[in-house]
Amino acid sequence: MNVKDYIRTIADFPHEGIMFRDVTTLFADPRGFRMAIDQMLHPWAGQQIDKVVGLEARGFIIGGAIAHQLSKGFVPIRKKGKLPGQTISQAYQLEYGEAVMEMHEDAIKPGEKVLVVDDLLATGGTAQAGIRLIERVGGEIVGLSFIVDLPELGGRKLLEDRGMNVSVLCEFEGA
Amino acid sequence: MNVKDYIRTIADFPHEGIMFRDVTTLFADPRGFRMAIDQMLHPWAGQQIDKVVGLEARGFIIGGAIAHQLSKGFVPIRKKGKLPGQTISQAYQLEYGEAVMEMHEDAIKPGEKVLVVDDLLATGGTAQAGIRLIERVGGEIVGLSFIVDLPELGGRKLLEDRGMNVSVLCEFEGA
Repeated sequence: MNVKDYIRTIADFPHEGIMFRDVTTLFADPRGFRMAIDQMLHPWAGQQIDKVVGLEARGFIIGGAIAHQLSKGFVPIRKKGKLPGQTISQAYQLEYGEAVMEMHEDAIKPGEKVLVVDDLLATGGTAQAGIRLIERVGGEIVGLSFIVDLPELGGRKLLEDRGMNVSVLCEFEGA
Repeated sequence: MNVKDYIRTIADFPHEGIMFRDVTTLFADPRGFRMAIDQMLHPWAGQQIDKVVGLEARGFIIGGAIAHQLSKGFVPIRKKGKLPGQTISQAYQLEYGEAVMEMHEDAIKPGEKVLVVDDLLATGGTAQAGIRLIERVGGEIVGLSFIVDLPELGGRKLLEDRGMNVSVLCEFEGA
């Protein structure tokens, strides 16, 4: 089985018309979870990484595993109001309205090399907010690693047009 | 430095009078994060563990690292409405009112051995909801592992009175 085979699709979540790609079945399988984390690390082998950033909330599961595997620090980027210390924040567009992501301003030092991870790349809105937060404190982004890409939503192209290195383990058609 | 030395205290978060024990400074430090994960695993060495359960959201960071280290599956227990599949849910008491935690009903099979992890043990409300969810699907809880215990809030005693094995890395006085 490949990583993709462990991912379950749930129709009409969180609302009608969405085919939700559910990675919890991948994470719950010992072989699937290890395979996913190992494959997410392959493209960056041999490169300097100082911090692993995970995007709330499924990116925390992946980022914890990868940071521990690399013996590096883990930094969460969270939804507004969740982080207790001094934060910087970045708004991004949603389908309707906007949302805000936050990071502790002292979580990444200027010049530190950062790998960003999350489960899914769709429009790339959250990832772009993350990139901005990291760049604003002087972090250098080595790359972004996702399990699933939804190419029709164009997030990967957007990130690559910004000069980002993007790795994905599999693609699904449809939004 | 010990694990406790990496933890930052932030006064009056999320509201006045609370001394918030912030583990993000522990997670961001490569030595601190590795030390915490390794020490959380020590008490369970040699025991059978099939699934690692992390409680939303900081428990995801820890649980991802521990499940990957053990080559086992990871299962999230989340706040209401976040999981896309068929869930079971469990209410628990908050200071004011109540909250609900959910788990996918197929995430743990009867007889599977489960380790539950989170960053902080306070009143034990979330942990108890997690225990109930796991037991309702027939999972057997090997133990619960936390980084911080706030002994004045009595959560540890409550869990131990239920016959649970509880491990904590450090304690802080005050709520």
